[in-house]
Amino acid sequence: MNAENFGSSERLVAAAYVRQGAQGRRGHELLLRALLEQGKCPEDGWDESTIELFLHELAIMDSNNFLGNCGVGEREGRVASGLVARRHYRLIHGIGRSGDISAVQPKAAGSSLLNKLTNSVVLDIIKLAGVQTVTNCFVVPMATGMSLTLCFLTLRHKRPKAKYIIWPRIDQKSCFKSMITAGFEPVVIENVLEGDELRTDIEAVEAKIKALGAENILCVHSTTSCFAPRVPDRLEELAVICANYDIPHIVNNAYGVQSSKCMHLIQQGARVGRIDAFVQSLDKNFMVPVGGAIIAGFDASFIQEISKMYPGRASASPSLDVLITLLSLGASGYKQLLKERKEMFSYLSSGLKKLANTYSERLLDTPHNPISLAMSLKNLDENNDVAVTQLGSMLFTRQVSGARVVPCGTVQTVNNYTFKGFMSHSNNYPCAYLNAASAIGIKKRDVDVFLKRLDKCLKTCRKEGNKEKSVNEICDSNTGTEQLAN
Amino acid sequence: MNAENFGSSERLVAAAYVRQGAQGRRGHELLLRALLEQGKCPEDGWDESTIELFLHELAIMDSNNFLGNCGVGEREGRVASGLVARRHYRLIHGIGRSGDISAVQPKAAGSSLLNKLTNSVVLDIIKLAGVQTVTNCFVVPMATGMSLTLCFLTLRHKRPKAKYIIWPRIDQKSCFKSMITAGFEPVVIENVLEGDELRTDIEAVEAKIKALGAENILCVHSTTSCFAPRVPDRLEELAVICANYDIPHIVNNAYGVQSSKCMHLIQQGARVGRIDAFVQSLDKNFMVPVGGAIIAGFDASFIQEISKMYPGRASASPSLDVLITLLSLGASGYKQLLKERKEMFSYLSSGLKKLANTYSERLLDTPHNPISLAMSLKNLDENNDVAVTQLGSMLFTRQVSGARVVPCGTVQTVNNYTFKGFMSHSNNYPCAYLNAASAIGIKKRDVDVFLKRLDKCLKTCRKEGNKEKSVNEICDSNTGTEQLAN
Amino acid sequence: MNAENFGSSERLVAAAYVRQGAQGRRGHELLLRALLEQGKCPEDGWDESTIELFLHELAIMDSNNFLGNCGVGEREGRVASGLVARRHYRLIHGIGRSGDISAVQPKAAGSSLLNKLTNSVVLDIIKLAGVQTVTNCFVVPMATGMSLTLCFLTLRHKRPKAKYIIWPRIDQKSCFKSMITAGFEPVVIENVLEGDELRTDIEAVEAKIKALGAENILCVHSTTSCFAPRVPDRLEELAVICANYDIPHIVNNAYGVQSSKCMHLIQQGARVGRIDAFVQSLDKNFMVPVGGAIIAGFDASFIQEISKMYPGRASASPSLDVLITLLSLGASGYKQLLKERKEMFSYLSSGLKKLANTYSERLLDTPHNPISLAMSLKNLDENNDVAVTQLGSMLFTRQVSGARVVPCGTVQTVNNYTFKGFMSHSNNYPCAYLNAASAIGIKKRDVDVFLKRLDKCLKTCRKEGNKEKSVNEICDSNTGTEQLAN
Amino acid sequence: MNAENFGSSERLVAAAYVRQGAQGRRGHELLLRALLEQGKCPEDGWDESTIELFLHELAIMDSNNFLGNCGVGEREGRVASGLVARRHYRLIHGIGRSGDISAVQPKAAGSSLLNKLTNSVVLDIIKLAGVQTVTNCFVVPMATGMSLTLCFLTLRHKRPKAKYIIWPRIDQKSCFKSMITAGFEPVVIENVLEGDELRTDIEAVEAKIKALGAENILCVHSTTSCFAPRVPDRLEELAVICANYDIPHIVNNAYGVQSSKCMHLIQQGARVGRIDAFVQSLDKNFMVPVGGAIIAGFDASFIQEISKMYPGRASASPSLDVLITLLSLGASGYKQLLKERKEMFSYLSSGLKKLANTYSERLLDTPHNPISLAMSLKNLDENNDVAVTQLGSMLFTRQVSGARVVPCGTVQTVNNYTFKGFMSHSNNYPCAYLNAASAIGIKKRDVDVFLKRLDKCLKTCRKEGNKEKSVNEICDSNTGTEQLAN
Repeated sequence: MNAENFGSSERLVAAAYVRQGAQGRRGHELLLRALLEQGKCPEDGWDESTIELFLHELAIMDSNNFLGNCGVGEREGRVASGLVARRHYRLIHGIGRSGDISAVQPKAAGSSLLNKLTNSVVLDIIKLAGVQTVTNCFVVPMATGMSLTLCFLTLRHKRPKAKYIIWPRIDQKSCFKSMITAGFEPVVIENVLEGDELRTDIEAVEAKIKALGAENILCVHSTTSCFAPRVPDRLEELAVICANYDIPHIVNNAYGVQSSKCMHLIQQGARVGRIDAFVQSLDKNFMVPVGGAIIAGFDASFIQEISKMYPGRASASPSLDVLITLLSLGASGYKQLLKERKEMFSYLSSGLKKLANTYSERLLDTPHNPISLAMSLKNLDENNDVAVTQLGSMLFTRQVSGARVVPCGTVQTVNNYTFKGFMSHSNNYPCAYLNAASAIGIKKRDVDVFLKRLDKCLKTCRKEGNKEKSVNEICDSNTGTEQLAN
Repeated sequence: MNAENFGSSERLVAAAYVRQGAQGRRGHELLLRALLEQGKCPEDGWDESTIELFLHELAIMDSNNFLGNCGVGEREGRVASGLVARRHYRLIHGIGRSGDISAVQPKAAGSSLLNKLTNSVVLDIIKLAGVQTVTNCFVVPMATGMSLTLCFLTLRHKRPKAKYIIWPRIDQKSCFKSMITAGFEPVVIENVLEGDELRTDIEAVEAKIKALGAENILCVHSTTSCFAPRVPDRLEELAVICANYDIPHIVNNAYGVQSSKCMHLIQQGARVGRIDAFVQSLDKNFMVPVGGAIIAGFDASFIQEISKMYPGRASASPSLDVLITLLSLGASGYKQLLKERKEMFSYLSSGLKKLANTYSERLLDTPHNPISLAMSLKNLDENNDVAVTQLGSMLFTRQVSGARVVPCGTVQTVNNYTFKGFMSHSNNYPCAYLNAASAIGIKKRDVDVFLKRLDKCLKTCRKEGNKEKSVNEICDSNTGTEQLAN
Repeated sequence: MNAENFGSSERLVAAAYVRQGAQGRRGHELLLRALLEQGKCPEDGWDESTIELFLHELAIMDSNNFLGNCGVGEREGRVASGLVARRHYRLIHGIGRSGDISAVQPKAAGSSLLNKLTNSVVLDIIKLAGVQTVTNCFVVPMATGMSLTLCFLTLRHKRPKAKYIIWPRIDQKSCFKSMITAGFEPVVIENVLEGDELRTDIEAVEAKIKALGAENILCVHSTTSCFAPRVPDRLEELAVICANYDIPHIVNNAYGVQSSKCMHLIQQGARVGRIDAFVQSLDKNFMVPVGGAIIAGFDASFIQEISKMYPGRASASPSLDVLITLLSLGASGYKQLLKERKEMFSYLSSGLKKLANTYSERLLDTPHNPISLAMSLKNLDENNDVAVTQLGSMLFTRQVSGARVVPCGTVQTVNNYTFKGFMSHSNNYPCAYLNAASAIGIKKRDVDVFLKRLDKCLKTCRKEGNKEKSVNEICDSNTGTEQLAN
Repeated sequence: MNAENFGSSERLVAAAYVRQGAQGRRGHELLLRALLEQGKCPEDGWDESTIELFLHELAIMDSNNFLGNCGVGEREGRVASGLVARRHYRLIHGIGRSGDISAVQPKAAGSSLLNKLTNSVVLDIIKLAGVQTVTNCFVVPMATGMSLTLCFLTLRHKRPKAKYIIWPRIDQKSCFKSMITAGFEPVVIENVLEGDELRTDIEAVEAKIKALGAENILCVHSTTSCFAPRVPDRLEELAVICANYDIPHIVNNAYGVQSSKCMHLIQQGARVGRIDAFVQSLDKNFMVPVGGAIIAGFDASFIQEISKMYPGRASASPSLDVLITLLSLGASGYKQLLKERKEMFSYLSSGLKKLANTYSERLLDTPHNPISLAMSLKNLDENNDVAVTQLGSMLFTRQVSGARVVPCGTVQTVNNYTFKGFMSHSNNYPCAYLNAASAIGIKKRDVDVFLKRLDKCLKTCRKEGNKEKSVNEICDSNTGTEQLAN
């Protein structure tokens, strides 16, 4: 409804009421205006009505929704199924152009606005979450692993001689594969045990750099968020080394946006040393469907280089999801989620500690890990070899998802590299254990139910103790390898 | 409603009517059954009601929709926004696992089924479209360019020494960039002019292979669908050369599924020679939003290698879109679309020919190109240099999308490579021209309106002939580079 | 997006593209403008995108969607369930006010516009369908029967002495009950048999009026659309009688809008005599869900009196449905549906005739009924009493809906009135028969499948001929009474 | 997915995961089961996913969604617009049959179930809300006024001689019109002033009954929920009188379900005397769109008589809305809403009291009204006659909805009856006042914002005190009559 249409409406409905209606519209428009002008996540979340209006407005700016459009190209944003058109709010042209995933599309002003706004709002949230000096970022419709690959492929053009990536070990397949896929040789730096924690071996990193020659190293590939008892890498020290040796530094911050500690590490690393890009998952940090990541950094032109490395257009779906989500939460809603997560972490921690004591196990002491906890499974492991993996299976069939049982001594070969003690980030971690995490969106009910079911399972395991398992109805999901993939 | 629930319903509504209702449900279930058992695109399309029921059924098989689930992992499929949850039918876990984008997820049986079925149905359609001997394929949530990159990255591991990719020139940035991004050096093979057509220079390809040494060549990267006057590459001859020299062969079949000719070329190439993989866009062939591609091939294990090369999970959104679309069209609906496209191609062709004659131009004679047409712009070009690009701008502002104006002699540098005559696939094509295509989903109205508007624009251009343009309100979109990106 | 917001967008996306987007928006706005100014059904249907935009625009004019609203009344348009809010496009306030169902609500300018526009568009369609001189109408969220009741209740205030309603018999319960519910005594006028047709007994009507005294008669209540072999009432003659005796005349035009013949009768009746109001079903004429009707007439003030008789607000749901439907069809789409219906009537007629002959039955000759057909079931009836009703049951369980089997001699008591030969509109129609209709939206497939299934059922009945039915698995739905209720 | 389909799925996805998925489905099915078997509102609300699954299941039991259906009737549930089909979840056949709005439809087992379950769940909630001995009820797609009319029309058949309805005055147009529309003569019983409260004049009621003769009285029509300073009628005393004189008693409980006091009055009235039916609005009590009501009572057969009085089918839309709402809230959610409303009533009450004092006005002392409050506007009224209505206008334009300003001495004629002091339920209430209510769904923010805006308006009014109003831009909505219609 524009001014003329409101005018025409007064023929049908009293002018005073139409004016009131126009005033009502104005309220929604002002929210849009603020977003367009400031490019920031609104402090208070928008209601669904405003969000839908906004998306509708964007959609009708795209040529596929022009009533008078005629299309004679090979890609016209036509949609065969109404179900599909609707679920994308008729935003069909995706994002980016052949030259740059962040570029504007002439045919699709609305989708282009969506893309720009999403990147801008996400940048705002990254600052709010703790990395205040970030200068540029973009959403890419690929998960964290493939996004890391894209970073490595971009660096290749800047360091044509480089073959190696220095990688403090983290037992998560897609991190490892991101380097393999990019065509580089990972140089695994084993972690060191400090108390119960597994931490970055800074000296080994530096020694390896010297040994291989800085120019032969594509980058250091470090990690923040990870399963306990590993803890986030010592980013400050790594960043200083990277600065000293003039080596790029890419940080896998997969689910670190939700933790002020992880974000603080990145901010500090960039302040005292060198961080070229940090990559985070959309789904793990923003409660959207799997399939997107944010590539961010402190040097805007390098981040743009990465975005130009993506050949062709891309799906707007992850951008749309995260934009809808952040608009509906608002900055305050997102901060509230972060706060609740932190509280649930304490709650889970104390609950798990209590439970561990009951079974003569202990909650491993991993104060540097802000998200994941580990409880030893020593007794279970010693009495019965099968039991540890069986516990995983038992939890799975009882609808506990995300708990991860790590036996000792699993050996796994990934792309021809052999990892001893796989899943535990270490060749020989002292004990088997179970992981549980407090991730964004977790509810008190999750923790309570988990502790109750775990208690029951442990009780059952203890009883079955030395009995022989005749019928071993264990699904694939309870093997160590399986649980890793969570 | 299961049997028990139907039973309970008989307390409220006469048994005979409930039975009739249960019978009605049965009809939908049988469709699902056939899909699950045969894995083929149903001959007749499903109605929306059945599709939504099906997606709903899949969704409640995923753990995030279990009523009793408790989650203590770092990725639990939680969704913050109801809008987002609904638009994905609550299928949140994406597809694949860290090991393989085609793998099954324990947490998400429904999403896993979706993924398997999509790939299976898409395979069926590729056969139906003309490549009968294809053995494996998968949908990947990346557009064509990035999917080609993934193929090249996979080949790297098989051919560690290779540096070059042999590439018969096609002036489309993302094709070119797909090789650069993967870290390889494109070896551009200029096309030869045969009549009006630009065709593959087979001899130059073979000469280049000999010159560089087969082992140094990663693959031949050929193209089917393209803008006239270029025509699909001579796939048979290229495939034979690849077989002879034991060089992999990757085909960019971007929007070729819609053309039986392009599909036939691939089928023939594979029959007489070697084709390792062919890649096609989802949006350009199946009328879904931008952002997905299909990687297909004749050696199932190689295709699986590619799918294992993708590090981590991925968005299910493109898979969901194409599955919904194919189920709603049915095989018969898709065939009907192909038929209509072909008819519209003839209609556009004869209309354009007539119009060209009126303006003393001609429709270029490009019988090997089944999708794109080109009409010369000789007079316009000779009289007035600005006019050719201005025509592009005029069409754009008149809501003609996809028409592409190609002036002579544009020079463009892409990733340090300089292309003369960019956009025309040739260093010096004899004349400027305008492209129009008959792509899937085109309607008679598109053609009619296009011809009418083009007529008006040409008339205006002729009148303005040698007049000076004082106010040159030409938007960016009318430069050659711009139109290229279509 | 208003002008300012488009301006702000140019910071993010090139001005030329934003202008193009704004131009795109303009296209939709112009459609809205035309609707608001002319109040007519657009010739061409709108696409879903425009309709949704329109509804969204209306919704944000209602106070419950004002971002800054605070509510301290007892009815504030709050909605507890998001599912409910969405399915009503957040239009919550319903239509009308306590004074008048057509009145404007101060709190809800958008809903008020919706109401006005719906009535205006519907009026346009009634003219288009053949009653050109209609002057006023309104949609009421009650089905035909209750809407007739409302008409009678309104007349009561104008004719306080009247007790009787003259009613040419039509065997449809809700017509009869509409009079009973209003508190009047129906005076049933039996139809006369002319050939196979049952037609209005004009002389009996006039005689009855004289007998009872015009001032004691509330109105004549006639019917157009009905099941063959009854045909539409002789409206012209009845209208003349009403004019002569100064008696109101209410026409039940339940599903007559779809037939130019029925509409023509009304137009003629009003021209030569008196018709006070005619009532038609929304669902039966406009393919929307059950639950709404249109009350229309030639004297605007009388129609307004009826609308003022409805005490309080009412559901906007039927208005919303019919408005969406007519906007999406457009006048041309609706005319196309009428045309197809007519064609299918011929097709059904000839198919049924052929089938009847095969079984030595005949298609009754009812040329004045433009919608419903009847095929005799003489043989079936004579050989086996059960068979006629069993045929109904057989068709029902074979998913033939709407076929209606009428045995001879059913006696039914409705609100203390006893009808002989119930369902057949006559005390003793010569034979049993089966009805089938060609109603709006019917497809060729419906007719083909129906004829095929009917053929099979008749074959089975013939075979089973004189056999005893031991297991009579006949559901309730096959009794005469049941089928009546269709 | 039935058992066979799960079986087929195991070909594609590991059996253990499919079993887990089937288990997940089971969770939803059990909820449906409980609903079908108990017919009660579930204690805990269902999530959207379960509700949508349930509605989808119902829909496919209706013949219009049978894949193999062929329709040759005049009402086949065809839908022209996809938007319409979807917003009704493809439940198109409405509710009821020509014989009874509560009856089952053979063609539509799903819609029939919906209807039965809605009535059953609503009955459960009425009990929960305080009328434990209610025995029957049904949802009718008409607002309160028309539903009352239906009750009166039903009574007519039981009391053919009756002409009058005894009606303790309540100044709400649709209550009054409900009697007029039904064709009866309202006998207005003026209220008596007790302190600030206006209460039922029991003696006058009895006197009037004696004067008119019980057999000439159709019923007593009393009211619970109303604007202060009127308070709910003395139901117990009225019920006893009705029992003594054998006169039916219909209670207008428009928005009384939300108040335990109103419900208690009904329960008590039925216990000690006679209440035949009580009618309540859906939108006002259950936060759904306008347009439905519940007719409930203690004698199941009388309620059924009313449901049989409705001629023909009816819209299922209000039933669908209330069912979705109650399933999503659950009994606990509804109770929570009731609790919050009560708390907000106290909060509003004390806030308004404080504000009144500031302006030397007072909160009227109306302890028997549990929902509505009144604050005197004595000073405003005395100083300036226009000011009182202007205050209404000011609040309206400041987006305060539902506040109701009542000046002294308004005279209004409704259907030829003249009311002195209209809006105030009294010929001469001592002062002007402003109403505000705490209705279900009200939030603390509503109250806070209201008090703040009211404060500002009163301040402005005071200042403008005796100034002349030159430009009186008062919209229609601020007149007394207007505000009444809330």
